[in-house]
Amino acid sequence: MDITSETFLSRQKRTSDYLLEEGISAAVLKDFEGSRNSSIRYLTGHPQDALLFIFSDGRTILVPWDMLLAEKNAYCGQIIPYTDYNRNFIKAAAAVASEKLSGRLLPQEKRKVNEDSRLKLEFSSSSAWLEILSLKNEISGFDIICREKGIDGFLDSCRMIKDSVEIQIYREASAVTDKIIDKLEQYIRKNISAAGKIIRETDIAFYIEKLAREEGCEGTGFETLAASSERSWAIHPWPAFSSGAVHAEGLTIIDFGIRHKGYTTDVTMTIAGKNLTEKQKEMISLVEKASFTAEKSLKPGISASSPAEDINLLFKNAGYTMPHSLGHGIGLDVHEAPLLKAPSGSPETLKEGMVITLEPGLYDMDEGGVRLENDFLITKEGCEKLTSSRIVFL
Amino acid sequence: MDITSETFLSRQKRTSDYLLEEGISAAVLKDFEGSRNSSIRYLTGHPQDALLFIFSDGRTILVPWDMLLAEKNAYCGQIIPYTDYNRNFIKAAAAVASEKLSGRLLPQEKRKVNEDSRLKLEFSSSSAWLEILSLKNEISGFDIICREKGIDGFLDSCRMIKDSVEIQIYREASAVTDKIIDKLEQYIRKNISAAGKIIRETDIAFYIEKLAREEGCEGTGFETLAASSERSWAIHPWPAFSSGAVHAEGLTIIDFGIRHKGYTTDVTMTIAGKNLTEKQKEMISLVEKASFTAEKSLKPGISASSPAEDINLLFKNAGYTMPHSLGHGIGLDVHEAPLLKAPSGSPETLKEGMVITLEPGLYDMDEGGVRLENDFLITKEGCEKLTSSRIVFL
Repeated sequence: MDITSETFLSRQKRTSDYLLEEGISAAVLKDFEGSRNSSIRYLTGHPQDALLFIFSDGRTILVPWDMLLAEKNAYCGQIIPYTDYNRNFIKAAAAVASEKLSGRLLPQEKRKVNEDSRLKLEFSSSSAWLEILSLKNEISGFDIICREKGIDGFLDSCRMIKDSVEIQIYREASAVTDKIIDKLEQYIRKNISAAGKIIRETDIAFYIEKLAREEGCEGTGFETLAASSERSWAIHPWPAFSSGAVHAEGLTIIDFGIRHKGYTTDVTMTIAGKNLTEKQKEMISLVEKASFTAEKSLKPGISASSPAEDINLLFKNAGYTMPHSLGHGIGLDVHEAPLLKAPSGSPETLKEGMVITLEPGLYDMDEGGVRLENDFLITKEGCEKLTSSRIVFL
Repeated sequence: MDITSETFLSRQKRTSDYLLEEGISAAVLKDFEGSRNSSIRYLTGHPQDALLFIFSDGRTILVPWDMLLAEKNAYCGQIIPYTDYNRNFIKAAAAVASEKLSGRLLPQEKRKVNEDSRLKLEFSSSSAWLEILSLKNEISGFDIICREKGIDGFLDSCRMIKDSVEIQIYREASAVTDKIIDKLEQYIRKNISAAGKIIRETDIAFYIEKLAREEGCEGTGFETLAASSERSWAIHPWPAFSSGAVHAEGLTIIDFGIRHKGYTTDVTMTIAGKNLTEKQKEMISLVEKASFTAEKSLKPGISASSPAEDINLLFKNAGYTMPHSLGHGIGLDVHEAPLLKAPSGSPETLKEGMVITLEPGLYDMDEGGVRLENDFLITKEGCEKLTSSRIVFL
């Protein structure tokens, strides 16, 4: 199933309605190197490098770096080349805002404007301090708005609950992910102790990328992490994968996702080698227990921090600490709301339609690391496990 | 040649001296997903996911997400786990600043403090608006500073001029890059019209990644772009590479870099197929001329925008427009200062020791794209061409 133009238009309409309700005349989103915002893809289908202006009266204007790419991909009212503004964000924002908003007031906006007399132009919550200062300086006639839970909070909350098309995409993506997990397990079992064979971290990373492309995916959703027993003590090994050999002993971690129609999965396998130490066995057993316990607790209505609290306690009682969060939402980005972290200042509540990961993990400089990560859809009653990653015992 | 602990310590010292001169008590840098800052690697060797506090009295404190990774990689006075602050940036900044700065005043700082009575704590120029507001709210007793040309401007200017070790690394990296260019040309020539063979964009991307790893590099410096004649009209094709076939006709663009000891190269080849149209031939000839003309103009003392102005004019006179900049600095990041763009508000001046790319390119939805990119070291008299990318005619 593909995302259709109707879906993009309805997402745009919903966003315009939100702005109208909030008394905001227009919102400006930005997606460039160093400051990515997948909401532009969510709203228009345009994949990268653009500004998006959304007006409360329903108009949308995309200002792409690559005009040809936009013409091929974007569902949007109007497209203006970024080169028209010398590829300068402040110039583009000032020009589009003053030209497109001058003299235009909608009934609801008028009511708000009466209260404080100026039109409101909202920028992403991630906008830079110096950028907002420049905007305030360069754009006259509007109030420059940058709020914690404004336009980005709204779009995050839209993206957090997957609709039926997105859920279908996740079912397809999960099937491909599981196929890769199975093939990878076979590949490792077959080759890891074969005479004259060496499996390298690079082989694993390439194997995953190749299978994902063969299955028609856009590729992997993030750089695959493949850390042999020498490096699996790192949460995110660096470099992500190396030419180092994967051994039949010790603990190897493989963390990957495939990107399908824009959406990424995110799973982690641990390869548990032969002759494990008692401590390694204990770490594996704790992580498997954590994974099982957390999965059982998932259901709508609970706080996103509550499974994380349970697992932190489980590890603490055994004398261990997990140095990262228990899980997170996935979607167009690999890390989205909600964050399953404890303690957390303002946790989300789990809701039907969320797609999240659980990824309990433990790390030790001498023993290596164990992590087990799978993706789950929150359902009306509890959850549905989308992927079947596991600890593979050699 | 490797970067030694002495180099890291001397970079830290130079930064502390800068802060002392500016009357800033400490600067805080942040490198996390969504907000990367390679200056932490530049200053300490720690590769990713950390805060770095640099004090004007020479102290440095790293607050890493992955403590084990920091212990292996970071040259730094003190390391405190990010988990101590519940992995919360504002909490960590407030706690470290108040604990480590309370009661400490250096002679020069005292002079500055007398003028305006408060200690100054500086954050990156890329800091978010809401983050700086929170910091101002949470951190009492200090002035929160965020300047356009402050600590980041200083570090950018340090990183912009490569020292002898960095230049040596670039010579090694360029040799590997050239080797890959040669092998890739052979690979394409051999296979593109061979019976029963299909070269896919994925094959090219994997081939480059594999060769880079075999040569002992960290990997590629950014996601390889491989766009067959069907997609080379895009400046940055999307996805970066696909399972699509590369054809013996038309224009194919391959843009890649290899990462060696942290530093990335950045080159682009165009594969010019058989039976080219007149327009394709004209685009190729213009891009080759632009590359040659720009290279000849490179020397210390000229404005970084001046070669870009020349090339824009060259293209304009022929009825074409280049939709991107002419080139950019490279280093730990693929896009660094200086930016070779015209017109530009505040261009840098080219200086001896800069390593930059020139990448003239032209794109057409029907004809495809041509881009030719090489890396250059600015020398005392002019420039040295580091890489040997080219238009390959089949």
